[in-house]
Amino acid sequence: MSEPKEGTVYLVGAGPGDPGLLTLRAARLLAGADTVVYDRLIHPDVLAHARPRARLLFVGKEGGGESVAQEEIHALLISQARLGRAVVRLKGGDPFVFGRGGEEALALEEAGIPYEVVPGVSSGVAAPAAAGIPVTHRGVAGSVTFATAHRTGPAPDWAHLAGAETLVLFMAGSRLEEVTLALIAAGRPATTPAAIVEAGTWEHQRVFEAPLAGIAARARQEAVGSPALLVVGEVVSLRARLPALARDA
Amino acid sequence: MSEPKEGTVYLVGAGPGDPGLLTLRAARLLAGADTVVYDRLIHPDVLAHARPRARLLFVGKEGGGESVAQEEIHALLISQARLGRAVVRLKGGDPFVFGRGGEEALALEEAGIPYEVVPGVSSGVAAPAAAGIPVTHRGVAGSVTFATAHRTGPAPDWAHLAGAETLVLFMAGSRLEEVTLALIAAGRPATTPAAIVEAGTWEHQRVFEAPLAGIAARARQEAVGSPALLVVGEVVSLRARLPALARDA
Repeated sequence: MSEPKEGTVYLVGAGPGDPGLLTLRAARLLAGADTVVYDRLIHPDVLAHARPRARLLFVGKEGGGESVAQEEIHALLISQARLGRAVVRLKGGDPFVFGRGGEEALALEEAGIPYEVVPGVSSGVAAPAAAGIPVTHRGVAGSVTFATAHRTGPAPDWAHLAGAETLVLFMAGSRLEEVTLALIAAGRPATTPAAIVEAGTWEHQRVFEAPLAGIAARARQEAVGSPALLVVGEVVSLRARLPALARDA
Repeated sequence: MSEPKEGTVYLVGAGPGDPGLLTLRAARLLAGADTVVYDRLIHPDVLAHARPRARLLFVGKEGGGESVAQEEIHALLISQARLGRAVVRLKGGDPFVFGRGGEEALALEEAGIPYEVVPGVSSGVAAPAAAGIPVTHRGVAGSVTFATAHRTGPAPDWAHLAGAETLVLFMAGSRLEEVTLALIAAGRPATTPAAIVEAGTWEHQRVFEAPLAGIAARARQEAVGSPALLVVGEVVSLRARLPALARDA
């Protein structure tokens, strides 16, 4: 496991929140980086792996503010690397699971900057686990689909998503009503067990359960904020049988 | 991040292979465990985190041999914990992504043994990444489905799996012919880009690409062994544009 190289950009998954879920490779790269470019939803104890003299550049969206445009992030990564710095681009979860890591890799490739991707523990698996929900389980769910409620381009194929054995929907918070109605309209029974996991694996994690038809109202009632994952499927009912797993129990 | 407790079982994801993708929490638990119960496909450098005096119990399947039955593994975990030992149950990838972690957690719950799950980096994301394939990518794939070719109970819903934007199929090696024919029969175009990733993130990783209709023949020709993941979808074609990612390039 080598030290980070000068003039190279590392696209690094920071995991879901819990700083213990950072990888050894990510910790090593952070400890050697000259520049760390990071998003919202990175735990302070993860950033604390960076050395005191590293430049920490925040490019996330805070409160109602604007996030830094994707093209600006590309330009920043390229210019920092061209200054001969070892750059860690730190992303919540995994860089390739709705993390826009592919876009950043393509921009670096086109600019001729050396880069490397370091996968992270995805929130899509770890947040349900911390809520007591295995996303797959023999005899209950032999597949799991990850999708995002925020997407550009064509609308999601709701008929396909409604047919998922387990569906994990990222960034579901603000569109929960719309999403659950669409799934039910596409054929998913309104009684399907569903859960919303807010800030999964963080100290302030919260989990709420309801049938699919009622989960949006439940989340509104509890003022669920971002980040939140929606989990839909029979695996949600395993939660009652695995009480030791639920971090917020 | 506390030390492992006596009489407790930790169901720990070891990640896809590359020992740098082990989590900090997993490394800490391994360093303090009295007993480590592990499967096939755990990198020796991961096991090296265990202390010299720890009991290392192998319960995987080697060569043509029989694997230890799931019920025997449950009994072993329970008996080791009842001896007052801190037990790490180490699994390739993540315990809840086709890792049977849910079954082990249920058995421990029923036996009244304290347990904890420590998520790991899933091979389903990391192996494609190490082959230069982002499983999601803006404008190309807004969702990804993970499924397994080995399942008990009812046959997979091929129509659903054929409709996945990105499909990642675990344990695909021995059933590749059957699986690709089923996907094409269920409506996935025969020309869809596909790749097989053998031993993803390991030093001996190999990747082969072909249209869906030809990938089984290609894998046979190259004598692809286990573990192998099949990736199906337009994201596979990003690989040609991200040559720096491919570890075996």
